[in-house]
Amino acid sequence: MIESLSSDAPVFEAVQPPRRILLGPGPSPVDDRVLRAMSAPLVGHLDPIFLETMDEVQSMLRYVFETNNRVTIPISGTGSAGMESTVANLLEPEEEALICINGYFGERMSDMVSRLGARPVRVECEWGSTLDLDKVRTAFKKSSARVIFAVQAETSTGVLQQLAPLREIADERDGLLLVDAVTSLGAHSVGADRVGIDACYSGTQKAISCPPGLAPVTFSERSVEKIRSRKVPCSSWYLDLSLLLNYWGKERVYHHTAPISMVYALHEALRIITEEGLEARARRHELNHRAFVAGIEAMGLSMQVAKGERLWTLNTVRVPDGVDELRIRKQLLEEFNIEIGGGLGVFKGRVWRVGLMGAGSIENNVLLLLAGLEKALADASFKVSGSGVSAAAAVYSQQKSKDGTA
Amino acid sequence: MIESLSSDAPVFEAVQPPRRILLGPGPSPVDDRVLRAMSAPLVGHLDPIFLETMDEVQSMLRYVFETNNRVTIPISGTGSAGMESTVANLLEPEEEALICINGYFGERMSDMVSRLGARPVRVECEWGSTLDLDKVRTAFKKSSARVIFAVQAETSTGVLQQLAPLREIADERDGLLLVDAVTSLGAHSVGADRVGIDACYSGTQKAISCPPGLAPVTFSERSVEKIRSRKVPCSSWYLDLSLLLNYWGKERVYHHTAPISMVYALHEALRIITEEGLEARARRHELNHRAFVAGIEAMGLSMQVAKGERLWTLNTVRVPDGVDELRIRKQLLEEFNIEIGGGLGVFKGRVWRVGLMGAGSIENNVLLLLAGLEKALADASFKVSGSGVSAAAAVYSQQKSKDGTA
Repeated sequence: MIESLSSDAPVFEAVQPPRRILLGPGPSPVDDRVLRAMSAPLVGHLDPIFLETMDEVQSMLRYVFETNNRVTIPISGTGSAGMESTVANLLEPEEEALICINGYFGERMSDMVSRLGARPVRVECEWGSTLDLDKVRTAFKKSSARVIFAVQAETSTGVLQQLAPLREIADERDGLLLVDAVTSLGAHSVGADRVGIDACYSGTQKAISCPPGLAPVTFSERSVEKIRSRKVPCSSWYLDLSLLLNYWGKERVYHHTAPISMVYALHEALRIITEEGLEARARRHELNHRAFVAGIEAMGLSMQVAKGERLWTLNTVRVPDGVDELRIRKQLLEEFNIEIGGGLGVFKGRVWRVGLMGAGSIENNVLLLLAGLEKALADASFKVSGSGVSAAAAVYSQQKSKDGTA
Repeated sequence: MIESLSSDAPVFEAVQPPRRILLGPGPSPVDDRVLRAMSAPLVGHLDPIFLETMDEVQSMLRYVFETNNRVTIPISGTGSAGMESTVANLLEPEEEALICINGYFGERMSDMVSRLGARPVRVECEWGSTLDLDKVRTAFKKSSARVIFAVQAETSTGVLQQLAPLREIADERDGLLLVDAVTSLGAHSVGADRVGIDACYSGTQKAISCPPGLAPVTFSERSVEKIRSRKVPCSSWYLDLSLLLNYWGKERVYHHTAPISMVYALHEALRIITEEGLEARARRHELNHRAFVAGIEAMGLSMQVAKGERLWTLNTVRVPDGVDELRIRKQLLEEFNIEIGGGLGVFKGRVWRVGLMGAGSIENNVLLLLAGLEKALADASFKVSGSGVSAAAAVYSQQKSKDGTA
């Protein structure tokens, strides 16, 4: 029997998005190869051909994380799902966890941990700076926490956190180091095994340059042991690693229907990374960041984060006094088709966030953005002190002559 | 400073999946229009153009769910994430919930509810049959549950559950009706408002014919009220509806980076549904199911589910005695490029699961599958009692002459 159904279907045009130059906090621009791979015909999530693709994705993710961890998979959700998967699996109810907070994503983690019924021990440090290690050490000693969480690449502030000192602190009491590498993986070295990271998550839409929708994660054997000895099952069925591993492992037991097309896309994005090589990719990100900063400073603007603590992938530029930051962003979008981001949390209205990530981290984008910014600032009656474009171009020339490619 | 990185990058070929005929329990075949839409250039998740796309997706989802519910969105995960989002938001710790179980997905829901710290009151009914309503009523009366969960379309058994009687039972004590429509939405009428469903979830990879990766959900105002009056926050930050609605609602507050490409794909898949119309789409699914069953029965095989209780989208065919079900599936895949599914749970090894969903529910697929099955059964020395293809073809001829299109 077929019920009589409403016939007033809404009618909409097909989506026809413009080709934006994505220089915000993510998503980053995606290579056409990735878009083509994503639109390949679907196969089943237990198809022998797809199982092979899964194996290859795991292998390339291990390369990017710089790890031999068996448990290295993409979670079927965006970066935040990957974030939640780590603590949902690692922490038990009532367990303390040391949460280092120097930006928005530390705050978010603290919230996630509370919701799971575990207890965040909050180490609050200044937004826009690296962590106060003495404070971290003291708090860790006073707590019963076994897990220390820190953000390697704070997308909200543009700060790069060195991980080795945190590893040392964790080692004082057999601690597990849990790291947010959402905005670093694929640009800054994560070095999971070299550093000794026990659990790490990222997203696909930043320096991996793949559409958002998957969250690469990796867990050390120590983490897996902790998860295996849980007393209470993971509160999330969807994110339970022990179930996920039956599908990603040799058993291939059905868990959920994997997002096939997204896995195709990630496979191609990772192939592009392996072709370029992690080290060359890091150098490229560093160079474009350096040229951008030279341009910004030549214009008389200033970076929010101190030199030496800056991410290459996410650049926070101070909004000059008297300038309406939203109007500048709007003009960049409408006149130049360029997206940059506004501030988040305590930096709302105070900084622009400029992403130079993955396929977006190229000379043309840096020069065009500086040109567009100069024009928009002039329209807003802000006088720049010099040409950002010239200063950036000089950095590229210097590098090219040093490399012998000029 | 750039660390010295490992240079032994793994090298893999690009993914080149074959064009399978996907007649398993999902993913279903996807129209090329959807694949093209998915590979459109990315824009930011706060881009004015994307926000418009989000509005349109919500509007078309309301059409497909047959609801005016404001809270109708795609969750950024596969169907199981949608499933978990309903109970993670609706139930508080220690709260009882009536879980009707007549297949694998009822079991899964029971597991999810337990993990969340709520208490499933399990009403166990026979796999492959509809629910025993007296049992449901009695259990509901005895419990303190406010939420009744049932599966409209049990993907593991092929059973279609009528929802009106469950609504009546729920009404005896102001109950909320929570429905799994993963394998029905877009084929069988869900009729959320007509039936009085309070929360419903689905997946994109079944009768919607969009790649897996998003989970459409809808919540009635009564459900939203219950969520608003929670005493304990939702244990999942990622799935917390109150946060999600700040992004999908007028405020557009950043929550997580939406899976842009998947939303493009869903937009186009929904456009295809609105063009066809829900009623015509239901008729198409019913016809192809009927022709398939006629073919199966003409061959001397039998359906697992009693007539009148069968899904059009997911057909469970009994494996004849002495036939190796896996060998048949393997031959269909390798010789004819056709994927069908095996049994799940108590039906493992006992049934084949044939999906005729969305773009996959067409005459050509039915005839080809019956032909392939006949060949594979003959190779396995199983003698069919008659031509499945002829019997199915007769159903189509009959329908065409009735419609005046022959």
